[in-house]
Amino acid sequence: MIGTMASKKSRKSSDVPYRRRYAIVMAGGIGSRFWPWSRSAMPKQLLALASDESMLADTVTRIRTIVPKENIFVVTGSKLRRGVAKAIPWLPTSGILCEPTGRNTAPCVGWAALEVAARDPEGVMIVLPSDHVVGPPKKFEKSMLSAFKVAADNEQLVTFGIKPTDPATGYGYIKAATVKKGSAKDKGPALAVEAFVEKPDEKTAKRYLKTGKYYWNSGMFAWRADTILGEIAAHLPDLSRGLRKLEATRKRGRIAQKDVDRIYPKLPSISVDHGVMEKSKRVAMLPADFDWSDIGDWNAVGDMWPGDEHGNRTRDPLIAIDAHGNVVATNGKPVALVGVDGLAVVDAGDALLICPRERAQDVRRVVAALGPAGLGKLS
Amino acid sequence: MIGTMASKKSRKSSDVPYRRRYAIVMAGGIGSRFWPWSRSAMPKQLLALASDESMLADTVTRIRTIVPKENIFVVTGSKLRRGVAKAIPWLPTSGILCEPTGRNTAPCVGWAALEVAARDPEGVMIVLPSDHVVGPPKKFEKSMLSAFKVAADNEQLVTFGIKPTDPATGYGYIKAATVKKGSAKDKGPALAVEAFVEKPDEKTAKRYLKTGKYYWNSGMFAWRADTILGEIAAHLPDLSRGLRKLEATRKRGRIAQKDVDRIYPKLPSISVDHGVMEKSKRVAMLPADFDWSDIGDWNAVGDMWPGDEHGNRTRDPLIAIDAHGNVVATNGKPVALVGVDGLAVVDAGDALLICPRERAQDVRRVVAALGPAGLGKLS
Repeated sequence: MIGTMASKKSRKSSDVPYRRRYAIVMAGGIGSRFWPWSRSAMPKQLLALASDESMLADTVTRIRTIVPKENIFVVTGSKLRRGVAKAIPWLPTSGILCEPTGRNTAPCVGWAALEVAARDPEGVMIVLPSDHVVGPPKKFEKSMLSAFKVAADNEQLVTFGIKPTDPATGYGYIKAATVKKGSAKDKGPALAVEAFVEKPDEKTAKRYLKTGKYYWNSGMFAWRADTILGEIAAHLPDLSRGLRKLEATRKRGRIAQKDVDRIYPKLPSISVDHGVMEKSKRVAMLPADFDWSDIGDWNAVGDMWPGDEHGNRTRDPLIAIDAHGNVVATNGKPVALVGVDGLAVVDAGDALLICPRERAQDVRRVVAALGPAGLGKLS
Repeated sequence: MIGTMASKKSRKSSDVPYRRRYAIVMAGGIGSRFWPWSRSAMPKQLLALASDESMLADTVTRIRTIVPKENIFVVTGSKLRRGVAKAIPWLPTSGILCEPTGRNTAPCVGWAALEVAARDPEGVMIVLPSDHVVGPPKKFEKSMLSAFKVAADNEQLVTFGIKPTDPATGYGYIKAATVKKGSAKDKGPALAVEAFVEKPDEKTAKRYLKTGKYYWNSGMFAWRADTILGEIAAHLPDLSRGLRKLEATRKRGRIAQKDVDRIYPKLPSISVDHGVMEKSKRVAMLPADFDWSDIGDWNAVGDMWPGDEHGNRTRDPLIAIDAHGNVVATNGKPVALVGVDGLAVVDAGDALLICPRERAQDVRRVVAALGPAGLGKLS
């Protein structure tokens, strides 16, 4: 019935029914920028950075209010299965899809689409990274419901664009197309997309901000399972072939892990942005009506946390004497800072990091140095 | 017999016999500059700063080679008895003298002199702080043996002067007097003292260094028990009266702790430097032929520890990226420093300190702030 609705654009649409809504949470990241808290078996999405729950749990809980829990799939790495299950104890075991090896986002999304399509080919799936900070919940819900509808009604690949608040150079941008209201290209509450652009330099980012036509690429999507599978078939035929092979192994509704382990590693490694979104004619951008940050390092984390009158950000007991603008993360251990400014101080119990906030990205260099220093067990 | 020798200055002297040698180690300090390692029940002398033993154990072991262990007395606070006993398990229980409350060094030295005199009035006692770094052992021994001799032969209050290596402003200085060789004032290997002077400012310290007549006041002494008791009687009559009262309680060779607890708190609180050394005519300074440092804070500790090619000093696993001249003390926990210079980073498991090395003295301010911050249990 939804299918019929969706194929007739002129029809008056209604909300996608609860049972047809799916959510895919991509939790395969192996980010090393949150060392010493993050480890290969404890990546960013499993850390409690934004609340006292893991970012993954926050993400799944956030979408849980509008998606049935049996329709939620977390795609992660085999090594993280235990950590994911622990982070979201209420998620059915069948809701954890384990990649034997990471193949970027297109295969991940494709496999998840197979799972949705096996249950409901016209099911609509929201695709969410597991390690972003998003709020407030009500605005997020509203945006998601709107995306479900656009994706269902118009068979669009919906991407969420975030209205930039500053000329950030750490994100890719999406340029909205100018479309005449009511024309064939008018996508309702969504906007047509003129182009996806790479992370800009600062000068370019400032220009983007000024035009008002550029949005941050959040990496969040919404589409019907049959739409994305069709677009993969059109633009990534190799991947499509692989996915069909995978689907062919399904027995009694299930694809066995051994078949995933055999077929998945051979799928082409490519992002859904490059492989599909940049090529497809069905792309629509929904300007997000919520706050969003990908908090990419300890510096960004600090901006989320409570601050004292000297701009020190922490959730831990802190004595600051002539100390300003520091970020402290010690899991509850009291810290005294004397005469230091702008540092990130991170204690993980078994390892300690100190670096200027502005060099927080260099934490990756520390992780790379662990092995050679004989400290590989900390990586 | 030694008494007779010592009273005739012209006599050819010989070494003080082993059994007449005593050592008093002053371990009552409550220093807070080594927080978070140091706590009220774990002051500097109980920390393993210079070796993998406590500074107290290092001190006692160092003098143990030339003094019988039953002639060694550690004077400490009642709260530290257990810690001291644990640090030096081989010391007889009777060798720990517990002050019910600190009364500065003159009462401490006076009480210890009573204990020595009760065993041997002409026993010679070396008085040592428990938290200094001293070496090498052979040179130290030689200096101590020389001091025993000067103290015994000439009935002098011997103080050790350290030849300054830089214009330090953190120590008091001793100015040597110019004495004609062979004159009545000639004290053999020891020098006559013209004056004790307070910690100088930098300009003054530079002048001191230039003249070559000024020595650092190390706070180490040597004297016969009867000599120091006589000088206390001459210059601190109130203290002397109190000590006689204490001595009068001795039964079967022992002063009971309850009598100490009753009498000791009423003794006048004054340092042996101000109360006796600066007034006595019997003072001699022995230039120390060993290396010495009182390592007063984390900055000074760093200078003792092994360094990497960027001047980072630590005994712990360290990854340093663009980091120079830092001191790291984490009891074995691996640390990564990125882009920071000249910091002291100290982890105690339950608390963490970060401050520039040059502000290491301000750690006292942190300790003062613990209570008001609700972290009194860490002080």
